[in-house]
Parts: sequence; C-alpha cells; structure tokens
Amino acid sequence: AGDAEAGKNKSAKCVACHGMNGKITIPTYPNLAGQNQIYLEHSMQAYKKGERTGGLANVMAAYVQALSDQDIADLAAYYAGMGEKE
Amino acid sequence: AGDAEAGKNKSAKCVACHGMNGKITIPTYPNLAGQNQIYLEHSMQAYKKGERTGGLANVMAAYVQALSDQDIADLAAYYAGMGEKE
Repeated sequence: AGDAEAGKNKSAKCVACHGMNGKITIPTYPNLAGQNQIYLEHSMQAYKKGERTGGLANVMAAYVQALSDQDIADLAAYYAGMGEKE
Repeated sequence: AGDAEAGKNKSAKCVACHGMNGKITIPTYPNLAGQNQIYLEHSMQAYKKGERTGGLANVMAAYVQALSDQDIADLAAYYAGMGEKE
C-alpha cells in the first residue's frame, strides 16, 4: 500500500503542475488534493501504460515513466490524504 | 462556454459513480466537485475520442459517447462550481 509520508518526499516534480497543496489555478491541470486514492493510482498507471494519450496526457505520461509502482502508490496516498481530510 | 445550471439538469447519469455532490466514497471513481473546469472538459473529450482506454475508462467512455460538446461544457461547469466554491 502507499505511504503518504514517502509520497510527500517524492512529490517535488508534481508541484509545478499540481500546486504546493495539490490545488492549482491552471484550469487545464487537475486538482489532486483529497482525490480518491485508488483512482489516483489507476490514473498514474494508465498514463504509464500509455492508456491515456493526446494533448497534455503525453506530458503527464513522460513524468510517470520514471516512477515505480511503489512511487505511484505513495504519491496516491499523499495526495488522497490532502485537502478535506487534513 | 459551459452553463452550470444546464449541467445540473444533465448530471443524473453521473450521480451513480460520482455521487450526489460530486464526491464519492468508491475509491476507484474520481471526485469531481471543485475540479478544474477545463481539465474536466478535456477529460470527458478524451474519453469520447478514445484517448483514455483500459479498465474503467471504457465504462466512462460509453457514458460520454452520447454527450454533445455543449453537454460536456455544461457538466464541466456544473462540477467545477461545486465543492469549495459553494
């Protein structure tokens, strides 16, 4: 399972598009704070497996290529735990 | 541009997976409340164009096939306007 603390340490590269607190004012990028954890994990895996293509999806896909399954699980736990629940 | 009120009237089919107020406890589906409007629009268009495949993406793609661009814009406005901003 994902470890939010470990996810926090791996989130530096995510901040540019998803914001410091998982909320971003750039309307083409999704807010991540408080999003459902398994959905986040499935989404990152989908980008990694090339199941999400076109437009900005290709940008995201490039970012997740270097992530391991554990990295993805940790990042999902980190962002899911943000927002309302804090 | 999208009309949130019109989007509300078109959202009946979305509730099963995305919840009455755009927040759902089923962790495999995304919360939509307060998500960025253009991201929501791009996502629905991507499902419609087959740019998102695999797993539950195919379920979502089936739902959006029947939606027009205006429907998609209205639904995006409706969900983006939910959550924090209310």
